Amino acid sequence: MNNTQAQVETEIGPWWQRDDLSYKSNQLFFAGQNLNDICKQVGTPTFVYSAQRVRRNIERLHHALSGTGLDYDIYYAMKANRNPSILTHLCLSGLVGIDACSPQEVLHAMSCGFRPQNISFTGTSVSKDDWQFLFRQPNLKINIDSLSALKHFGEHAPGQRVGIRINPALGVGYSDNALLQYSGRDVTKFGIYQEQLDEALAIAAFYDVNIHRVHFHTGCGYLNQQLPVWSDILEAALPFIESIEDVREVNLGGGLGVPHTASDQPLDLEQWQQIIRQHFGGKGLRMAIEPGDYVLKDAGLILLETTYVEQKRDKCFVGVNGGFNLAPEPSFYSMPCEPAPCALSGNAPITATIAGNINESLDVWARDVSLPALDEGDYLALLNAGGYAAAMSSNHCMRGEYHEIVIP
Amino acid sequence: MNNTQAQVETEIGPWWQRDDLSYKSNQLFFAGQNLNDICKQVGTPTFVYSAQRVRRNIERLHHALSGTGLDYDIYYAMKANRNPSILTHLCLSGLVGIDACSPQEVLHAMSCGFRPQNISFTGTSVSKDDWQFLFRQPNLKINIDSLSALKHFGEHAPGQRVGIRINPALGVGYSDNALLQYSGRDVTKFGIYQEQLDEALAIAAFYDVNIHRVHFHTGCGYLNQQLPVWSDILEAALPFIESIEDVREVNLGGGLGVPHTASDQPLDLEQWQQIIRQHFGGKGLRMAIEPGDYVLKDAGLILLETTYVEQKRDKCFVGVNGGFNLAPEPSFYSMPCEPAPCALSGNAPITATIAGNINESLDVWARDVSLPALDEGDYLALLNAGGYAAAMSSNHCMRGEYHEIVIP
Ligand SMILES: Cc1ncc(COP(=O)(O)O)c(C=O)c1O
Ligand SMILES: Cc1ncc(COP(=O)(O)O)c(C=O)c1O
Repeated sequence: MNNTQAQVETEIGPWWQRDDLSYKSNQLFFAGQNLNDICKQVGTPTFVYSAQRVRRNIERLHHALSGTGLDYDIYYAMKANRNPSILTHLCLSGLVGIDACSPQEVLHAMSCGFRPQNISFTGTSVSKDDWQFLFRQPNLKINIDSLSALKHFGEHAPGQRVGIRINPALGVGYSDNALLQYSGRDVTKFGIYQEQLDEALAIAAFYDVNIHRVHFHTGCGYLNQQLPVWSDILEAALPFIESIEDVREVNLGGGLGVPHTASDQPLDLEQWQQIIRQHFGGKGLRMAIEPGDYVLKDAGLILLETTYVEQKRDKCFVGVNGGFNLAPEPSFYSMPCEPAPCALSGNAPITATIAGNINESLDVWARDVSLPALDEGDYLALLNAGGYAAAMSSNHCMRGEYHEIVIP
Repeated sequence: MNNTQAQVETEIGPWWQRDDLSYKSNQLFFAGQNLNDICKQVGTPTFVYSAQRVRRNIERLHHALSGTGLDYDIYYAMKANRNPSILTHLCLSGLVGIDACSPQEVLHAMSCGFRPQNISFTGTSVSKDDWQFLFRQPNLKINIDSLSALKHFGEHAPGQRVGIRINPALGVGYSDNALLQYSGRDVTKFGIYQEQLDEALAIAAFYDVNIHRVHFHTGCGYLNQQLPVWSDILEAALPFIESIEDVREVNLGGGLGVPHTASDQPLDLEQWQQIIRQHFGGKGLRMAIEPGDYVLKDAGLILLETTYVEQKRDKCFVGVNGGFNLAPEPSFYSMPCEPAPCALSGNAPITATIAGNINESLDVWARDVSLPALDEGDYLALLNAGGYAAAMSSNHCMRGEYHEIVIP
């Protein structure tokens, strides 16, 4: 974004504004709350989540999936955000089940009210101890991602239903970011490859295991530009499904993205559901998806305080009291981070590099971004911090403390 | 490393073997303990640290620094590893003070016995709340990394001594890895640049602040190849030091590296101390260093269990019951990771990709490495996990549990 764009913004509002997130009288409001007031009252760093936005995101998915005319389930991928209050809201809504990937996640979902029959488990590198736990939960929907895991399952649960995670050897990700792709040109640890399928079927036959479900998850953050590849992935999954007699369900994974910059468009769910219908319509299969980010990312933000504003050589640094250990995506995955001051001063916009408080050079939230002027002591919201932020946070440099506020 | 190298290893031993880390009767011993036994008795994932190795690493630094003939102090950078037992060992040894970078780190060091006068504080993006804490600790040695921080300090502590962190606009790092460089071609948030020095001196004069110390830390993991650049950095620091009348101490930061691969040589401390002497000999300055990794990294390893061994396309995957959330350097910083089975089977070595149990494609410890054969259920040690591993760990996917064992 350049300065002219920033100026336009102050007139027509920034690209990310929406009903529940916008400036009123120069104060930023989210889910009806004045964020500046929250900063003053609660302190910073603070994550703020809107349960209503979470619900809206899920309702949009339900609307789209209903359009396919197929039976379906939505499992929320709790690895994106396991805040107990959010999980409780989700459980009470009755709109979603849970996608869990570790025994501790299963237990945490149960502690927030979910029952095993509404939990789908897709782990990787499942250990002996993990299996011991899983075999005590007969109602969990387990998806298995390797031949050796299938053997384990067969040995302990002969005659049972299970899902297998396949690897269609194609991947998608935000902005075609390779770090976010789970399958593709490189051979990855995830899922059973086409060449392994015969052996998988032989193992299943040997142990009398019923492969009831095919699962794949091929990347995170896909938007409209990635829909053609996503369509190819669904196409690539069909031969697997057709080779397995018992399959009744297909889980398309998560990976649905949200806009991160002014030039990103929201995912076109109408086009998305048509791709699903086109590949799976009339096949009598039950569909599932397991989104994390799409449900939570834009329903959360992090509030920080400006610690200094200082010119160093050609860069204006805006320091804040929180670093990449609280939300690693901007630093470690090069995901764009959108800063929004909690109050607008009316001064000319600045071009700034927003730096965290961790003693590492990569601890920078955003480089050379244009944003409304702000001063030491001012509060700043970083948007899209609802997913893979607090859930991945660490106590590096013992700078790991934060508050969480859920707006109901 | 290729297979021939691996074969040679089984005869002459692997490159990393040393007095306190080697195979005996095909079992891997560390600090006198059989690691296979620890795995069986304690479970995995488990970090094992050797307090004796920590002490040896520090003694080597003392020996080298004594060679300079200069007065000096060593501050251990606790951000590398804040295990309370290790910190207590360090405190009791009397050999080091602490380098802390946040109020919580200062408090944690104090909880392990360190007194403020033995703690050096170099934070970044220091907040109002941080300052409030710092001003209550008059004996802390504070280094300041921006002009605005210097103003804060002056306003609240006029007439006091302080250090300033400078930015010599040059950086070093393991294998010249840019992620590990804290200053250099790119303008970074760390320290006061040469062009800012006059203003810094004016601020100091205005508040009657005594700039007693110059500090710089320019990167992590440097080895012998980086020593010429490190020498240039010391050279670049001299004009700063010469322009500040009150300076009596120079802190050269941390960043001393340890070997990560067979082709890395240990840092030549004789050459290193000569560089220090050459730049600072006869100047009447007290020297300080604040190493983290050099003290802790090779004094720790992480023990994991093999969950599966499976060929997928052209890759042999070895799954383990711990992922990059427990030790992010291999995934996020592309640092080489050295696997060592806890017991040798005598079977032919394999070339394998070691994959963790996190549902992310980047959760791979090492790609296509040659290592002694191992099977499902076998225990594996990943070396050099004493620094920036547990200290940066997260509970991502709720796979964040681990044990820690300190061998005294
Ligand atoms: C198997 C699986 N399902 C679902 C998800 C959720 O992905 P997203 O949050 O991008 O929708 C992930 C994320 O890593 C995953 O690994
Ligand atoms: C100011 C400062 N000093 C010391 C260190 C320790 O570095 P190392 O562990 O590489 O010695 C760091 C690491 O980030 C640092 O930022």
